[in-house]
Amino acid sequence: MLHKAVARYIDDRHDQLLDPLLKLLSFPSIANVPPERSGHDACLDCAHWLLEQLNAMGFSARLLEAKGKPNILAQSVVDPARPTVLIYGHYDVQPPDPLELWQSDPFAPEIRDGAIYARGANDDKGQFWAHICAVRAWQEAEGELPVNVKFFLEGEEEIGSPHLEAFLIEHRDLLQADACLVSDSEFFDAQLPSITYSLRGIACYEIRLQGPSADIHSGIHGGAVTNPATALCSLLAGLHDDSGRVTLEGFYDRVIELTDQERQEWRELPFDPEAYMRDLGVDGLDGGEDSLAVLERRWGRPALDINGLVGGYGGEGSKTIIPSSAVAKLSVRMVPDQDPKEIFDSLKRYVAHSTPPGCKATVLAQGAGRAVRLAKDSPAMQAGIEAMTEAFGRRPVLIGCGASVPITELFQRILGLDAVMLGYGLPDDRIHSPNERFQLQQLWSGAKATAAFLQNIAASHP
Amino acid sequence: MLHKAVARYIDDRHDQLLDPLLKLLSFPSIANVPPERSGHDACLDCAHWLLEQLNAMGFSARLLEAKGKPNILAQSVVDPARPTVLIYGHYDVQPPDPLELWQSDPFAPEIRDGAIYARGANDDKGQFWAHICAVRAWQEAEGELPVNVKFFLEGEEEIGSPHLEAFLIEHRDLLQADACLVSDSEFFDAQLPSITYSLRGIACYEIRLQGPSADIHSGIHGGAVTNPATALCSLLAGLHDDSGRVTLEGFYDRVIELTDQERQEWRELPFDPEAYMRDLGVDGLDGGEDSLAVLERRWGRPALDINGLVGGYGGEGSKTIIPSSAVAKLSVRMVPDQDPKEIFDSLKRYVAHSTPPGCKATVLAQGAGRAVRLAKDSPAMQAGIEAMTEAFGRRPVLIGCGASVPITELFQRILGLDAVMLGYGLPDDRIHSPNERFQLQQLWSGAKATAAFLQNIAASHP
Repeated sequence: MLHKAVARYIDDRHDQLLDPLLKLLSFPSIANVPPERSGHDACLDCAHWLLEQLNAMGFSARLLEAKGKPNILAQSVVDPARPTVLIYGHYDVQPPDPLELWQSDPFAPEIRDGAIYARGANDDKGQFWAHICAVRAWQEAEGELPVNVKFFLEGEEEIGSPHLEAFLIEHRDLLQADACLVSDSEFFDAQLPSITYSLRGIACYEIRLQGPSADIHSGIHGGAVTNPATALCSLLAGLHDDSGRVTLEGFYDRVIELTDQERQEWRELPFDPEAYMRDLGVDGLDGGEDSLAVLERRWGRPALDINGLVGGYGGEGSKTIIPSSAVAKLSVRMVPDQDPKEIFDSLKRYVAHSTPPGCKATVLAQGAGRAVRLAKDSPAMQAGIEAMTEAFGRRPVLIGCGASVPITELFQRILGLDAVMLGYGLPDDRIHSPNERFQLQQLWSGAKATAAFLQNIAASHP
Repeated sequence: MLHKAVARYIDDRHDQLLDPLLKLLSFPSIANVPPERSGHDACLDCAHWLLEQLNAMGFSARLLEAKGKPNILAQSVVDPARPTVLIYGHYDVQPPDPLELWQSDPFAPEIRDGAIYARGANDDKGQFWAHICAVRAWQEAEGELPVNVKFFLEGEEEIGSPHLEAFLIEHRDLLQADACLVSDSEFFDAQLPSITYSLRGIACYEIRLQGPSADIHSGIHGGAVTNPATALCSLLAGLHDDSGRVTLEGFYDRVIELTDQERQEWRELPFDPEAYMRDLGVDGLDGGEDSLAVLERRWGRPALDINGLVGGYGGEGSKTIIPSSAVAKLSVRMVPDQDPKEIFDSLKRYVAHSTPPGCKATVLAQGAGRAVRLAKDSPAMQAGIEAMTEAFGRRPVLIGCGASVPITELFQRILGLDAVMLGYGLPDDRIHSPNERFQLQQLWSGAKATAAFLQNIAASHP
């Protein structure tokens, strides 16, 4: 339930709550920019600034140095008997390129037409700032938080969190909590508050077929020598059957089918395939399994996509060679309980079997994270549903997402905690693109939703 | 028949015949280097120098300005009643890159171990220089040529002779002759003098599949949106059947089958598939039609190869996108009487039929030249066979070539002249590669073969 004084505090102190966010957005905290380039490490600067903010709010905050960018852990214990809520966010951002498409400087945040424009305005600085606003509102309006709170803010989310799993395993004890809040997602549409509970996993692979030791003349040798590009195309074409299903042996063995209820709920969402195609500039949707509805294919079924194809000559005009090699990059979006290692093994067997004489194949695995389905019927989820209903004036829908938010799977697997994903972004906020923004109305309502969530968690632990 | 005095002249005057060749090889006459780069046009410099040489030999030589680099036409009429031999060569050369792999400067010719090393030493300055040596030997040793001679030296062979067809049609009358000699080919192996009579044609195509208007997230959209790279692979995989035959409708309709005699002759050539594979660094030869012998697949059957594949991400690691588009470059090596326009039409129909909803296809034709089979039983071919037998001490084999020498098809079609291709190069002369060379022994024996050829042509026209 949303406390009136807390809500009023948020409504009355917009400027006071917004000023530090503008400062936060001014750090170009891109995790994969080497510090040497700018002379200092913007991620480290940003982390230190956040540390000061959280310490000033009475949190016991520290940087947990790890390989890569540091993680911030900040804790406020109001009463050991009360439940603890772990709140996740990430302070690193996507690179802003292409710069010339930005209407204002991506790291000089600007407010226009009721929205903040900056890199990270939504993803994820703006969204976790809503949680900080909620905490401050509780502290200032009511004197104390209704629960204990731990902030966990990471600095390498946009580069795939390469060190996070090892870190969480090492610091498992520090992160124990009774409920977990993650806001790194969005509304299904601008009018529809949403909680994401089903996320696909991802596994990336590379297949290389090596033919002759150099590019050779397609006239002198064509028709005799095995062409690695032709062989690669045949091999890749064989990965799907005519109905769009993946042919790899065992690929669907561990797939947990959607329940009839989930299917029904997703079919009732206001999804318009025509508008979706218009947005993407396509005249058909032929990916995945023919017989299934579009949202089911995107959220509830695995998909195998070619992300890149490279082989031979790619310039202007023609160059009549048989390429020495050809490479494909693939990603598999997995659903529970698919195992990236098993898929890798099956892919290797398939490639070995499908590579013709005259080519040598190599298959690499390039990182993977499993799919996750979060509890829909837990007290914490109920607390989230009620908080969003109150803050946004409409009951949220429970939705899936075809992409991954790997932290949710790591928290579930390593901490035993199912995150509640209260997504405050809107679908047209252009995350990862020029002119990223965050609507101020979403920030303030989001802060209220978080404030209510904390209260609801307190109420659910008598 | 080889005139003794002519042969003796060649044997006695090596230095005198070699010095101007070294000068000729010093011009970096690369047709696609813009003159602005070096301040002057090396092709034009080279053409003017050749013009002077030919004029000094009593030829009436001129530059026929055309679009692109000029063609040289030089004529010596000893007696209008005698037959005229048209001799072709090209004075432009391949670029020398990568320069660092050359043992000596590609445009400062060096003689080492009995060979000249320079760009163009074989292809084609050295080979047409053998003809010039033969002409000088006749003039100096016997006082006059046994036939009328026309030299036609082009300057854009290595960039695909883009203006040659129009030029030949315009100047058809100037080029009329009774026999034609082209030396831009090689021995089958170092011990086996060879005349190439069968050359495949070439047609280049580009297929582009356009999907979403930008690269999109493979997690959010994978399984719904048609992936253009996947669609392209399926489409390309469908171009061959399981036996390696091209599936395009009508593709083999005009193919003229080899005669049993041709098959037999090619099978008797000392071709060692194991050595061929070793040279290329492959462990199998799975291109083309399974059931046929390797030389038949390379010389006597059409082949369709992918020359390039480009789509999506090709850098290090992974980038999880559905690419906006994917492109393939193809070349078809044709045999008589395949028609590149008919193949293009069939390819367009196939692509239109095989492109799934969600992609738009475009197919471009990027230049084509037809295949040619030259007369094997003509008096001119007989003259060539006898000339090579006498000069190299062994009867030449008649061979095919999987690549094109487009001038031969143009001469046949436009002038009605079947060239006799006396190839003086050796297979390990590294044409188009660093350290290109031409064995001096091949130059001198080649000059004698040309000298005998001229005499044989004279004798065959009583």
